[in-house]
Amino acid sequence: MPRLETATETDIESQPTRIEHDCIGSAAVPANVYWGIHTLRAINNFPVSGITVSDHPEIIHAYGTVKLACARANRELGGIDAYQAELVDRACSDVIAGKLDDQFPVDVLQGGAGTSTNMNVNEVIANRALELGHYPRGEYEIIHPNDTVNKSQSTNDSYPAAARLTLIDASHTLIDSTRKLSASFSSLSQRTMTVVKIGRTQLQDAVPMTFGQEFGAFASQLGSDAALLEQQHEPLSVVNLGGTAIGTGICADVRFRELAARHLATITGLPIRPAADPVGATSDVSDFVMLASGPRAGLAEIQLPPRQAGSSIMPGKVNPVIPECVNQTVFMVMGMDTTVSYAAQAGQLQLNAFEPVMLHAMLDGMHMLARAMDTLRERCVNGIKVNKEVGMAEAMRSSSLATSLIDYVGYEKAVQIAKDALANNTTVRAAADKEGSIRPEILDSILDPRDLTRVY
Amino acid sequence: MPRLETATETDIESQPTRIEHDCIGSAAVPANVYWGIHTLRAINNFPVSGITVSDHPEIIHAYGTVKLACARANRELGGIDAYQAELVDRACSDVIAGKLDDQFPVDVLQGGAGTSTNMNVNEVIANRALELGHYPRGEYEIIHPNDTVNKSQSTNDSYPAAARLTLIDASHTLIDSTRKLSASFSSLSQRTMTVVKIGRTQLQDAVPMTFGQEFGAFASQLGSDAALLEQQHEPLSVVNLGGTAIGTGICADVRFRELAARHLATITGLPIRPAADPVGATSDVSDFVMLASGPRAGLAEIQLPPRQAGSSIMPGKVNPVIPECVNQTVFMVMGMDTTVSYAAQAGQLQLNAFEPVMLHAMLDGMHMLARAMDTLRERCVNGIKVNKEVGMAEAMRSSSLATSLIDYVGYEKAVQIAKDALANNTTVRAAADKEGSIRPEILDSILDPRDLTRVY
Amino acid sequence: MPRLETATETDIESQPTRIEHDCIGSAAVPANVYWGIHTLRAINNFPVSGITVSDHPEIIHAYGTVKLACARANRELGGIDAYQAELVDRACSDVIAGKLDDQFPVDVLQGGAGTSTNMNVNEVIANRALELGHYPRGEYEIIHPNDTVNKSQSTNDSYPAAARLTLIDASHTLIDSTRKLSASFSSLSQRTMTVVKIGRTQLQDAVPMTFGQEFGAFASQLGSDAALLEQQHEPLSVVNLGGTAIGTGICADVRFRELAARHLATITGLPIRPAADPVGATSDVSDFVMLASGPRAGLAEIQLPPRQAGSSIMPGKVNPVIPECVNQTVFMVMGMDTTVSYAAQAGQLQLNAFEPVMLHAMLDGMHMLARAMDTLRERCVNGIKVNKEVGMAEAMRSSSLATSLIDYVGYEKAVQIAKDALANNTTVRAAADKEGSIRPEILDSILDPRDLTRVY
Amino acid sequence: MPRLETATETDIESQPTRIEHDCIGSAAVPANVYWGIHTLRAINNFPVSGITVSDHPEIIHAYGTVKLACARANRELGGIDAYQAELVDRACSDVIAGKLDDQFPVDVLQGGAGTSTNMNVNEVIANRALELGHYPRGEYEIIHPNDTVNKSQSTNDSYPAAARLTLIDASHTLIDSTRKLSASFSSLSQRTMTVVKIGRTQLQDAVPMTFGQEFGAFASQLGSDAALLEQQHEPLSVVNLGGTAIGTGICADVRFRELAARHLATITGLPIRPAADPVGATSDVSDFVMLASGPRAGLAEIQLPPRQAGSSIMPGKVNPVIPECVNQTVFMVMGMDTTVSYAAQAGQLQLNAFEPVMLHAMLDGMHMLARAMDTLRERCVNGIKVNKEVGMAEAMRSSSLATSLIDYVGYEKAVQIAKDALANNTTVRAAADKEGSIRPEILDSILDPRDLTRVY
Repeated sequence: MPRLETATETDIESQPTRIEHDCIGSAAVPANVYWGIHTLRAINNFPVSGITVSDHPEIIHAYGTVKLACARANRELGGIDAYQAELVDRACSDVIAGKLDDQFPVDVLQGGAGTSTNMNVNEVIANRALELGHYPRGEYEIIHPNDTVNKSQSTNDSYPAAARLTLIDASHTLIDSTRKLSASFSSLSQRTMTVVKIGRTQLQDAVPMTFGQEFGAFASQLGSDAALLEQQHEPLSVVNLGGTAIGTGICADVRFRELAARHLATITGLPIRPAADPVGATSDVSDFVMLASGPRAGLAEIQLPPRQAGSSIMPGKVNPVIPECVNQTVFMVMGMDTTVSYAAQAGQLQLNAFEPVMLHAMLDGMHMLARAMDTLRERCVNGIKVNKEVGMAEAMRSSSLATSLIDYVGYEKAVQIAKDALANNTTVRAAADKEGSIRPEILDSILDPRDLTRVY
Repeated sequence: MPRLETATETDIESQPTRIEHDCIGSAAVPANVYWGIHTLRAINNFPVSGITVSDHPEIIHAYGTVKLACARANRELGGIDAYQAELVDRACSDVIAGKLDDQFPVDVLQGGAGTSTNMNVNEVIANRALELGHYPRGEYEIIHPNDTVNKSQSTNDSYPAAARLTLIDASHTLIDSTRKLSASFSSLSQRTMTVVKIGRTQLQDAVPMTFGQEFGAFASQLGSDAALLEQQHEPLSVVNLGGTAIGTGICADVRFRELAARHLATITGLPIRPAADPVGATSDVSDFVMLASGPRAGLAEIQLPPRQAGSSIMPGKVNPVIPECVNQTVFMVMGMDTTVSYAAQAGQLQLNAFEPVMLHAMLDGMHMLARAMDTLRERCVNGIKVNKEVGMAEAMRSSSLATSLIDYVGYEKAVQIAKDALANNTTVRAAADKEGSIRPEILDSILDPRDLTRVY
Repeated sequence: MPRLETATETDIESQPTRIEHDCIGSAAVPANVYWGIHTLRAINNFPVSGITVSDHPEIIHAYGTVKLACARANRELGGIDAYQAELVDRACSDVIAGKLDDQFPVDVLQGGAGTSTNMNVNEVIANRALELGHYPRGEYEIIHPNDTVNKSQSTNDSYPAAARLTLIDASHTLIDSTRKLSASFSSLSQRTMTVVKIGRTQLQDAVPMTFGQEFGAFASQLGSDAALLEQQHEPLSVVNLGGTAIGTGICADVRFRELAARHLATITGLPIRPAADPVGATSDVSDFVMLASGPRAGLAEIQLPPRQAGSSIMPGKVNPVIPECVNQTVFMVMGMDTTVSYAAQAGQLQLNAFEPVMLHAMLDGMHMLARAMDTLRERCVNGIKVNKEVGMAEAMRSSSLATSLIDYVGYEKAVQIAKDALANNTTVRAAADKEGSIRPEILDSILDPRDLTRVY
Repeated sequence: MPRLETATETDIESQPTRIEHDCIGSAAVPANVYWGIHTLRAINNFPVSGITVSDHPEIIHAYGTVKLACARANRELGGIDAYQAELVDRACSDVIAGKLDDQFPVDVLQGGAGTSTNMNVNEVIANRALELGHYPRGEYEIIHPNDTVNKSQSTNDSYPAAARLTLIDASHTLIDSTRKLSASFSSLSQRTMTVVKIGRTQLQDAVPMTFGQEFGAFASQLGSDAALLEQQHEPLSVVNLGGTAIGTGICADVRFRELAARHLATITGLPIRPAADPVGATSDVSDFVMLASGPRAGLAEIQLPPRQAGSSIMPGKVNPVIPECVNQTVFMVMGMDTTVSYAAQAGQLQLNAFEPVMLHAMLDGMHMLARAMDTLRERCVNGIKVNKEVGMAEAMRSSSLATSLIDYVGYEKAVQIAKDALANNTTVRAAADKEGSIRPEILDSILDPRDLTRVY
């Protein structure tokens, strides 16, 4: 957990400052920062996790994008004038480009449904716009955080819109990592398509299969996961911009809703569209409920690349540390899923005030999962070697080979042959020979090792 | 929890019996039951929950449907003869029609990935088919549970196929209940579309809205939930029939996969299709991971229909017992979701052996949720009365009305007016009058109560 | 899920009835039941899970015990007269003895913090008491469900008290099953205390150990679990009887609190005592938050008793169905733990209204877990056979034996010996011989197979 | 999520280096760090969370303490010589004092059951000890990370021992924050002990109580939570030092177990004692399963101190941002609890390899919870003002006052009075007057406002 070294009120007062005010009173803000009094209040109110919005630059860039779309819509509707719009437009571009990433010191576990993040964004954009127009910071009569930058918006519509862009953005990395891991399993599958091994169900020997089939299954499951993640882009592209406070659209031009969405679509290239029922959309966070996911790897008969000494006491012991690291990452993600579920069920009346923790947990989860998959791919899957001899030997020794005999002798006799093979510690082939129902040359063809690799 | 009164081995032996045998040995089965030795073993092995497959008749009917499709595919491919096929076909129809619902005494928390349920089905169909052909039960040379009824199948392909049909079946009730509850909120919304109330975010007064907007939001959120549930039918329609034991298709004609899916589609009218990668599909249970869901109702300013005395000590106290009952149902469903998540992550190698508990938990969850929504609709939502006077009075008294003034005086002055109204315990209208920036006739039009109901 | 066949209002009206009334109005109750109008309302209000309080007889017996203690306290304080007390006393005894178990048709997922269960109990006791006094049912002027049976109580104090007794009662079975399973592992441990096997960490060979040590570890972990469960009896023995509605004790004699607890202690033999802060106790459900628990069994190198055919297609395959059944039970219990957590966090203001679902989930979980442990013990652990030859062979072949050499040659040389053994597919003994640092006779003594079994 | 800037292999190679080797081969380690090749491997293997062991200094200090106790035990038993012991002793003291906190770059989500952390500690202590003896780093013949620092230990015994010390250490802060919050509620309770308000159950008016009783309930619940946390110190004081790899004690003197525990007890002042069954203790992580916990605050009728502007659009709106921040923290902690549960159930055979993620999640959870409680106390509870007039007015208006009449007129008549009061929008006092059963002067005394504050 990051150690907390947020500025205290005392620290701040010892620097050159400017005075700003809000509905509670006034306070001194460091002269050299772009953020203002609302951000200062939030810094002091939420010294909890030590993780700040600056640690999630995707949120900042996405929020800048939303503000840009809104500024353009406001300009067209006359809500802000051309000069203001020009300055805000340029300031938003700086935010989107990551130039002001260090100006978002608000804790991610802020109360207030994202109001502190939104005001932090409004203040940074306003002060950067003032600077671009050669005005001193805090000259809010020219460019006002609320009246200009937040025009026609509320936290309750702009924050979810930014959150959705953020999630789409972050999902690209995760989808990419998932696809690459799938490709690694796929290529491993192709290299081992005809190498026989015994399949197992319930930890017991089942019928033979090939390593290629086994790895191919992992590849196809990961491919499905990636497709499922991509499908979430569609519902995530619905925004409730223009709904303002609780979805009624108070303080916003009735045309703003369509226009802001259209600008956002143009800027992002995404199929952004306005929510059909903005009141419902304001309190609905169901699109944020994650699908539990996770690669599973069955690791028998294969050799993982050795990565480090496995024990501080047992010489030469090498452990499967990379898959273990992936396991632990998945446990963290499961925990984040719980966090999101609890937060999602706790919304009250017209709003779910807990979006900040949902967004934080989802971003951390997606990034960790992506890195874990990259690690698994690069440091484990790509180096997996299969043991051809072990695979074939175990397959030929398995009493489950009797399954192949069912079509010739029926289930009951096949059971008897399997039991005989086990009792006499011999192969199914030998037991079937002894039983005598099937002629040896037919047996040869049924149990031909080369034939065990056929895919039906 | 149901009290366990499963037949003990002693009980069974005191009835008229027939002798059957399996790979472990032989045992006496009650003469008058359709099930056989495999079911008997399972009864004795799993005396855990006291809830049996018979308690989930949807599983039985769905499994009968799968067996019917397979029998028809086997007949076409010559795997079973026309006479056998005819008898099995009729036996399956009896199972589907619910005539043999009491013949499935296996515990739902069975080990074995569903093998006990599958063998229970195979035995019941075999013995019913024998009966229809006027043979005694247990004459398995004529119709064999494995060689005839289970032909070309394994538990690992037929059980998931039946599970998917079961879930689609059970989801219809849930979707229907969700839609009906949505319709009730919708109709409530229409009746109250112009009745003003104060909206609330974070439990604090926000801007005015109408009851109609509030209830409409619940209606649209529930509508989205229903649509989401319906979308699950598509991935649930993919079956891995013909994959047999671990997806390799051993013991099944290569054409069986397509043919069985086609028959299943014809019988059910669903867009059933075979899995692209049957090895992956055999161990993949991700389609069973439920979406957390649940209606949320914010119930201020309204009057719920009184349902029962609320207290054993406080006279006349009436509590919101119906929503509380719904809450508790949702907590149960959240628990079932946890069960499914744990079971889904615990699969090993070529199979997830824990499908029985997933299916049980999902069915219970879907049924409970459907009944809870019906109860909420019939015994609560349909009787909700809104308090018109309270709604308007609270809205007009709210200092958040100052939001409407922003377009006229800017954010900073509007803050001052709101603070004055609060400090002097007066209305925003009065405080704005006193402040003097906006002329009274303009104020009248901005704060016209009739105007608070407009939807932008 | 149990099929719902609760009485409908129509059904009830077609039977002989008596008329009762409550704060909502009047209704016809079947003449032949002990319950009354409050129970009838609840039957109609909560048609959700189909599981009734009658399915949890421990709740009924515990509630009867609480009512008995309260009746005796009320008699001493003069709150009810001697004649009423005598009749109520006898009626409570019938309830405790299980004679009226079928008279509790209220759904376990009732809203109302248990009020419906409490009123069901009050009505059944009142009517049984009336019957014992030869009065007709419903003659509540003589014995009143509220004024007599519920005297000095509220649901909010009597329900938690009954819930605590119920949990203590139910825990005895679970503790007993846990201890028996521990004893089975213990006895298995003693029988195999000198049989060598390789230990494994992270699924890789570690150093040798004995089967006895391995099974002994399971025994001691289960023993700790049982002790932990028993420790919960102490906090569960604190009751808030006499707190009445919200802990303030309104309507109850100030001496009732101590007196009722003392009677309850006498009747049950438990160290029951009153809560220090009854207001806090009324809304605090933290004692109900379960400890996640569960036996873990690593089952390599051993032979489980075969229990049933494992596959419908693979002849002779036998699966570890009993442990799988236990796994699934644990997943159900994990789900119940989630249910309890959600319900526990959802309490509002002076009360947590969700105790009914917590009690239901905990009881089901405890019973299932107890049965699963009994099943594991009887049908699996007691029949486990260890494979002495495999154990020793794997241990002697393991390169981790080099750990024993560290004290003689240091970590670095031991690593080299382990690597040589692996590279040349030979034993550590042979590689150490070749390396030459340790004289053969010393090596003999370090790696003496008999010595691998020592417990340090 | 911290941005990952871990040293890449390339980075490291461009600095002055020293060459070290392990069982995989050799590698260049930066010359100026105290860690060695094992740490380097781990840095490269686990680029997952970006959170390092250095971010949890408690782990480092606790591990140093364990190493110190072991070094002293080894010295007494002759396992290391006096000179080595002296140097290691001083190096451990530096680690414990926090002088080397920046030398632990291993990711917290490492695979390997903590082996990487243990080796990181062993290497840092060895190299610091070498430096104190004026030897160059890497001269492991003098002081060896494994043979000297890790003497008689394994990761599987030393890591859990360090984890337990870490948790005890971290719990002090949490217990302290809990107690302080309890004290704040307690003092608030004392200041408001006679201020009447209406109590509420199930969100409906119940009987009157005082604010003091309400806040006192929060104080006592928090006090119980703190006591519960403190009780965990006892089971956490059991260590399995000397169990080495899997609890068998291989490579450790049989007296080491007792001696190391005794030294650890002396150094820490804690009642440290050895585990009775070290094999069981090695794979048992049940003491790490957290109790769900969390403060609950019912916040009606009171005024929270305003902390920041609540809305970017609604002027003057102030939201309960501090409690919301606490809610979100609790959701995070619930997620961490899920992480720990999943990790705890995933252990295999002789070891649970997932202790690192458990420790990480528990530490983060405890710290966040402590800070959230401090924030709640300082920025909310200490500033709460109660509204005396509203409290009394609501209490006197409540129809639940009829509860007080039960002792005089019985439950049925009291219901009628409550219903009349509601129907005629009047007080219970007025309705009772009209009903006439109780004389006015008696009514006066029953419903005397001063009397509503009595605590029974």
